[in-house]
Amino acid sequence: MVEASGDFPAWMRTPGSPFSNYGTPSKFENQVIRRIGSNRLAPGNGVSWTPLEDLDGFITPSGLHFERHHNGAPEIDPARHTLTIHGRVKQPLAFSVADLLRYPMRSHLGFIECGGNSNAGWHPEPIQRPVGSFHGMVSCSEWTGVLLSVLLDEAGVDASATWGVAEGADAIAMNVSLPLAKLRDDCLVALFQNGERIRPEHGYPMRLIAPGWEGVLNVKWLHRLELTDQPVMARNETAKYTELQPDGRARQFTFVIDTKSLVTSPSHGQRLEPGFHEISGLAWSGRGRIRRVEVSADGGKTWFDAALQDPVLPRCLTRFRAPWNWSGKPAVVQSRATDETGQVQPARRALVAARGQNGYFHYNAIVSWAIDEDGAVTHVYV
Amino acid sequence: MVEASGDFPAWMRTPGSPFSNYGTPSKFENQVIRRIGSNRLAPGNGVSWTPLEDLDGFITPSGLHFERHHNGAPEIDPARHTLTIHGRVKQPLAFSVADLLRYPMRSHLGFIECGGNSNAGWHPEPIQRPVGSFHGMVSCSEWTGVLLSVLLDEAGVDASATWGVAEGADAIAMNVSLPLAKLRDDCLVALFQNGERIRPEHGYPMRLIAPGWEGVLNVKWLHRLELTDQPVMARNETAKYTELQPDGRARQFTFVIDTKSLVTSPSHGQRLEPGFHEISGLAWSGRGRIRRVEVSADGGKTWFDAALQDPVLPRCLTRFRAPWNWSGKPAVVQSRATDETGQVQPARRALVAARGQNGYFHYNAIVSWAIDEDGAVTHVYV
Repeated sequence: MVEASGDFPAWMRTPGSPFSNYGTPSKFENQVIRRIGSNRLAPGNGVSWTPLEDLDGFITPSGLHFERHHNGAPEIDPARHTLTIHGRVKQPLAFSVADLLRYPMRSHLGFIECGGNSNAGWHPEPIQRPVGSFHGMVSCSEWTGVLLSVLLDEAGVDASATWGVAEGADAIAMNVSLPLAKLRDDCLVALFQNGERIRPEHGYPMRLIAPGWEGVLNVKWLHRLELTDQPVMARNETAKYTELQPDGRARQFTFVIDTKSLVTSPSHGQRLEPGFHEISGLAWSGRGRIRRVEVSADGGKTWFDAALQDPVLPRCLTRFRAPWNWSGKPAVVQSRATDETGQVQPARRALVAARGQNGYFHYNAIVSWAIDEDGAVTHVYV
Repeated sequence: MVEASGDFPAWMRTPGSPFSNYGTPSKFENQVIRRIGSNRLAPGNGVSWTPLEDLDGFITPSGLHFERHHNGAPEIDPARHTLTIHGRVKQPLAFSVADLLRYPMRSHLGFIECGGNSNAGWHPEPIQRPVGSFHGMVSCSEWTGVLLSVLLDEAGVDASATWGVAEGADAIAMNVSLPLAKLRDDCLVALFQNGERIRPEHGYPMRLIAPGWEGVLNVKWLHRLELTDQPVMARNETAKYTELQPDGRARQFTFVIDTKSLVTSPSHGQRLEPGFHEISGLAWSGRGRIRRVEVSADGGKTWFDAALQDPVLPRCLTRFRAPWNWSGKPAVVQSRATDETGQVQPARRALVAARGQNGYFHYNAIVSWAIDEDGAVTHVYV
């Protein structure tokens, strides 16, 4: 803060830009981007990360919503795309975009998190990366579309059906199995994201939204749903998304995203000055609303409640904020979320004890940021 | 709907696009744009409209948020921009972007509506335009920034201050007066819109957000706030935003957006087929939450309640939906909103009776869409 002074910069002395049909961010923000991690030999295989360190609020602009593709984002002509519902149904049906637009719509403002998000947390040493490049496979949008239960009723579900196999129209025909109960409960065939039609990389023209369940189940470019009496045992529910545990048994079909939170400011790469800081971050649970977020600045010795920013919605990111005065002495900042079912985010030690050192998916442990005497922020395990 | 058939389009036979740093809409949606109405001699003066007819849900993607500029959108270097608070304060202060980022943040998910939105409704004959090009100077974002009251406390408000004059850093130095009570209540100095930093045309790097109050008060490119003991009587609160009434008195400082709603589907330009349709639209009030939206399909003879889509937030767009079976006979579709203070959206006749034929601002009457026997939808007065 400085005292006021008169200042008439160039942009006040010449007319500004005219109107535009579709806006883009300021050129001064051109480093606020999705960071890409893809396979050099197959550039459509990999991820891009939401830069959580640069964002505030809880909505993710669609241009920065994380991506996880297996074989790139197809460019689909919506006039030639249909969703076919078949298998254990009374009448197989194919729905065009125009068909779906005639149905009643429903919106879900909620997160999508990749089951593999934060998996660098399993590494025995704390990895040093910006928070978005570590935990940024979670994003939050308003998804609007048709309740899948309505379409299932149109096709007529056979009494023998217990699962559905959802398949995307990408060049790997990515498919996964979901229990019929979930498909009938709250799943959407979404056509809109944050008000406008879904972007190509997020599933244009239609995407399955499975609120609160891991990202891979929210099948992009959805073109086929086959009702079955068992899971299809697809690659992404056997070779992937299945984990050996210490006792020799495997976790499989671990659909629901557990209670989780992380502090986005302060976080890796920032340099603090002593004095007031707001500890700010995001919390979420696939089971419902976040009930409470506690924050610690002493590595978990003492905790205090953060304020939850309205609205606090089920299966949605919730922004939390807590005031903090940094003395200038070394500190460790953490957050710990509790959801409305009472599930408490675990300490890393407890998560590793339960799941072993070879975990990969559903890492939801407390994240710890150390601030040293110079104000530098690094990732630590405590 | 057709029966299912096998179909393997080109995009399933070749790898899709690789990852991108910042996404954009599908090329198949390139007609979903802000429609521009600007002054030929001064292209930075005018508006661009949110295409409400193409959107669903309640959030407006920032790229489609309406624009109203007086002299274009300045390209501001955030490192050289400050907000100066001065006038009737104990200590004038200037806040840089970096300064503001140190303060506690607050989010407001809410609408901004231009006070001149829908003013074609005053025309004696019903104007025929897409709903967005008629009523699309309303949009909805999550705005995140610093509560202005915190900054006012830093400067120290003088006991004699009763108003504040907010000024933008555009090439007209657009300014307006707001009562100090509003500035201290819930106004924000916003830095973020829908998660990311505000776009240039929406006020980058900082914008005053006055929740529920007319758009012009939400000063973009905010660089100066002077506390005073009277309004400044700026162009945009005297020559504009002031209206002569039938009784010879003038309405001035009509800050609050009244209760309003409109049906976005069906709406002008659509052609319906008989059968099921969802009547869907948006409702909002500057006074708080929407409590109720009633829908009529017979020009107001009978009304039934629409469902309000969660979340229903104060001073925010609320999406409403109601099922409707169109018989194929002529019909007139309308919506009527009531807010939590009990204010009911007026019929056009009542609004014109109260405000006269020469109104311009704050048009919030019930909107009527006629469907003829061919299913064509036109704007009518009933």
